[in-house]
Amino acid sequence: MKVVITGGTGMLGRRLALRILAQPELTGPDGTPETVDKLVLFDAFEPVEPPPDDPRVEIVTGDICDPATVDALIDGATDSVFHFAAVVSGGAEADFDLGYAVNLDGGRNVLEASRRTGRCPKIIFTSSLAVYGGERSVDDTTALTPQTSYGTQKAIGELLVNDYTRKGFVDGRTLRLPTIVVRPGKPNKAASGFASSIIREPLQGDDVENPVSRDTRMLILSPPRAVQAFIDIHNADGAVLGPNRALMMNGLSPTIEEMLDALRAIAGDAVADRVRDAPDTLVQTIVDGWAWYADGERARALDMTADASVTEIIESFIAGELGGKIAE
Amino acid sequence: MKVVITGGTGMLGRRLALRILAQPELTGPDGTPETVDKLVLFDAFEPVEPPPDDPRVEIVTGDICDPATVDALIDGATDSVFHFAAVVSGGAEADFDLGYAVNLDGGRNVLEASRRTGRCPKIIFTSSLAVYGGERSVDDTTALTPQTSYGTQKAIGELLVNDYTRKGFVDGRTLRLPTIVVRPGKPNKAASGFASSIIREPLQGDDVENPVSRDTRMLILSPPRAVQAFIDIHNADGAVLGPNRALMMNGLSPTIEEMLDALRAIAGDAVADRVRDAPDTLVQTIVDGWAWYADGERARALDMTADASVTEIIESFIAGELGGKIAE
Repeated sequence: MKVVITGGTGMLGRRLALRILAQPELTGPDGTPETVDKLVLFDAFEPVEPPPDDPRVEIVTGDICDPATVDALIDGATDSVFHFAAVVSGGAEADFDLGYAVNLDGGRNVLEASRRTGRCPKIIFTSSLAVYGGERSVDDTTALTPQTSYGTQKAIGELLVNDYTRKGFVDGRTLRLPTIVVRPGKPNKAASGFASSIIREPLQGDDVENPVSRDTRMLILSPPRAVQAFIDIHNADGAVLGPNRALMMNGLSPTIEEMLDALRAIAGDAVADRVRDAPDTLVQTIVDGWAWYADGERARALDMTADASVTEIIESFIAGELGGKIAE
Repeated sequence: MKVVITGGTGMLGRRLALRILAQPELTGPDGTPETVDKLVLFDAFEPVEPPPDDPRVEIVTGDICDPATVDALIDGATDSVFHFAAVVSGGAEADFDLGYAVNLDGGRNVLEASRRTGRCPKIIFTSSLAVYGGERSVDDTTALTPQTSYGTQKAIGELLVNDYTRKGFVDGRTLRLPTIVVRPGKPNKAASGFASSIIREPLQGDDVENPVSRDTRMLILSPPRAVQAFIDIHNADGAVLGPNRALMMNGLSPTIEEMLDALRAIAGDAVADRVRDAPDTLVQTIVDGWAWYADGERARALDMTADASVTEIIESFIAGELGGKIAE
């Protein structure tokens, strides 16, 4: 079984790759388990973190906006494509043309290349809370009224995945992600980045500013749970998914205060005191436009569940990304 | 004031053009009435019906899929664009690539050319009931879950119009149309075409087959009311429309039986008896997937109303398109 991950050396792509290499059984096109023997990690950038050292892995660097590149990437041997490559929310808002080129046209290139294989590969498309428009609580049936270019591009991608699936060109599945917390590594241009920074930076000994009020609630999901959800939606029975292939993934809905309380309980006062409130009305306004509660009924029916607690999220970050070490 | 109509020699485009030439005052960019002194009718085809003979009119034939053509069409003098050019529902379903090229990429060309003018022209985008997905009753807030490629392309167009408007690139307005009845001329590839044929053909002396059950309800709007609605949404205050620029237009919801009863009352038994039931399960299935009731609250608030009765719809067709003559 051959699997392609676009954005394959990025945060989620790389972690999904490591997971697939460790547990290489996925549900194949005929619904039975198959073993992944080829894993192509495609990205626009040279890997920042070291790529998995494994003979099954091939690293391809290229431009998702170039149809010929994507056609060569998704060849007639490809069974499944996880499509993570994207310009994030802040980036798509800052560079309108780049956002549409990567997030819309790049996605169309993936769908077209997959269609051309003639074998209806599985396409797992990453969507986001940003497709919604100002509701505090959302579910699978909430109307998509995005308020940013990124959200618009993701909503369009969902529509395309459904239509290509309906036509039998691909077997598409879309997962709408909560905000991923705790993201490892450096801050990115996502407006939601602070939600990770306020946990990650203090644990590594660095001071950090919290731009929103302590009673702000956010819908969050850990990277390990997100990776599991992508495996789950890949392996789900398409007939169960039905014609609308987009599922809202569940998450936790803590306040910032609750997140920082959990950090304090785990890591102590010295760590938690590295967070300083520095209200930023722009960030507050953006975050206030996001849903903080999701009733992901369809995801739940597929046993795709949120983390058990904020404590679990923080502890899995410390164990998985910091080697168990806290900078006290 | 310069106005461009894409699909300008088609059924709705031509009728809107005639209306603007007769009553050339539209609300300009600064909110005050201006006089249209230049009207460009763009279409892929040479006009079938004679174009308006008027010095203010320019006919341009070209391909909406070609960015350079659309850039030349929507120049720095353009104040408003009515974008009707589209592959209809049946056509977009039969030719997937053509549908996306015209309905999605053609629409993007219109938005990009408008953006490049740097003066935020008004763009009036035509959407459709086909953006919904199986609900019998819809309103402005119903989630868009289209079940056809045409509906998908229109839903994507709505999202793009909202995002380009939010960014200040265009002043976009989208009107979701009911099924237009009575369409003049020959049948087109729209799956809804029979709803016009069963009125139009008998009035002109021709037998016609009705493919759906008599108790099938449809949401319908006459061409004159549709033209008025496009004028109304063009002239509406953008601040009143808000960030979601798409409005569901109201229509009547008669059964086929009620439509044919009205035909019989107006035109007599000989005309009405030219309709023969010839059930077509494919058409019935498609039509059963369409909403037949719309609560277009936002349109109503702008005084954009449905026809008063089916009788009014048929009588306006006879007066406006048949010169008052019925083939008895």
